[in-house]
Amino acid sequence: MNTGKVTLIGAGPGDPELMTLKAVRALGEADVVLVDDLVNREVLRHAAGARIVEVGKRGGCKSTPQHFINRMMIALAQQGQKVARLKGGDAFLFGRGGEEMLALRAAGIEMEFVPGITSGTAVPATLGIPVTHREYTHGVTFVTGHTQDGTPVNWRALVEGGTTLVIYMGMKNLPEIVTGLLDAGMANEMPAAIIQQGTLPEQKQVITTLASLPMAAQQEKMASPALIVVGDVVSLARSEALTDALKYAA
Amino acid sequence: MNTGKVTLIGAGPGDPELMTLKAVRALGEADVVLVDDLVNREVLRHAAGARIVEVGKRGGCKSTPQHFINRMMIALAQQGQKVARLKGGDAFLFGRGGEEMLALRAAGIEMEFVPGITSGTAVPATLGIPVTHREYTHGVTFVTGHTQDGTPVNWRALVEGGTTLVIYMGMKNLPEIVTGLLDAGMANEMPAAIIQQGTLPEQKQVITTLASLPMAAQQEKMASPALIVVGDVVSLARSEALTDALKYAA
Repeated sequence: MNTGKVTLIGAGPGDPELMTLKAVRALGEADVVLVDDLVNREVLRHAAGARIVEVGKRGGCKSTPQHFINRMMIALAQQGQKVARLKGGDAFLFGRGGEEMLALRAAGIEMEFVPGITSGTAVPATLGIPVTHREYTHGVTFVTGHTQDGTPVNWRALVEGGTTLVIYMGMKNLPEIVTGLLDAGMANEMPAAIIQQGTLPEQKQVITTLASLPMAAQQEKMASPALIVVGDVVSLARSEALTDALKYAA
Repeated sequence: MNTGKVTLIGAGPGDPELMTLKAVRALGEADVVLVDDLVNREVLRHAAGARIVEVGKRGGCKSTPQHFINRMMIALAQQGQKVARLKGGDAFLFGRGGEEMLALRAAGIEMEFVPGITSGTAVPATLGIPVTHREYTHGVTFVTGHTQDGTPVNWRALVEGGTTLVIYMGMKNLPEIVTGLLDAGMANEMPAAIIQQGTLPEQKQVITTLASLPMAAQQEKMASPALIVVGDVVSLARSEALTDALKYAA
């Protein structure tokens, strides 16, 4: 008899305390945990009774192909195991959770979802940056710095939309992103930030203007995983963070 | 000696298990909790030692004015109290947390932020809708259905941006929002959903097409608090949810 299932769990942005009570319970009930690269290993203490399977690219190896992860989850669930699939942030926001869900659904596997805190809100908050503030903007857009099929991102539409922009996985294309935003009419002086390893003790950041962002990123050797935040709300950052940023002003 | 402080806490979308470990700890350390209307009262069991102050509009009273809440937080912190300011969802995403932060900062009050799970990701997830999926979109936009100064939302730019749209507080303007999106060139048949009381036992929803959304909402007596989700990813909802929706198709 098959009583297995898969729970897709968002582990949050990095700080192990930023995981939900529901995620803690699901990890405690799991027989096996399939854990991604960007998940803080400290949260695995909540899964003391479970077998841990690393499916990330630690140690320089290539990451486990997605279809292999899907097959493993399906096989384990069909054996009757309670599988916890643990991902950084929220599994349904740039987490490929949607792809895994569709594979599990096609195989008729029972599923549950446990949302996680996404970096896009939690990481700017560490600097005192609210992603929305009704005197500045009526919304926020979370985007990747690239599209799946290689067509350019419509930066013009995103700028005209008037929301705060939070760009995930954008460090590799940082100069193109900044050029795209400036060409779309965004001001050189628009406040902008890059925050690396947000919510962790290793966190570092630069806050400057949009036009100065690539130079500042290079000077400070900013690297992935990092979040890029662009918009007037960035000016609300705590004064210590802003003072630190002044040196980059053109 | 003043050792008071204020912790701005996001309580999550409704399900009391969708609160973080950090929020639980902050509530346990609080002397007093200022709690908003939309927060599930069950989470207050984590604040067993604290005085609870309701600052919402329960019982038909007008909600406590924002400046009064700000003054109360400042006064309590200046008396040396540990104040937990508890809000639904995430305090920095349409939570007016930014306004409270600025008031506290101006008064020199020590602050901490505890992010919360926002409805925008967690509520669609209950139906098996991932707000992003790389084969459908490269991002998601969270917006309110109105702007602070009454200028119209630029729906055309939001449509051209190509992200999933998640609209908060949009039920009052639902017909105008749908008209705005259709006029901006979005297809009549674009999948769309309204989800009321998401993540709670009282949750209900309609899933249909953009053009049918106002009629479906009226037939099903959908009301605030509710989330509107528009985009191709809505078609990924679980089949039970979709079958339920077929009756609204024009």
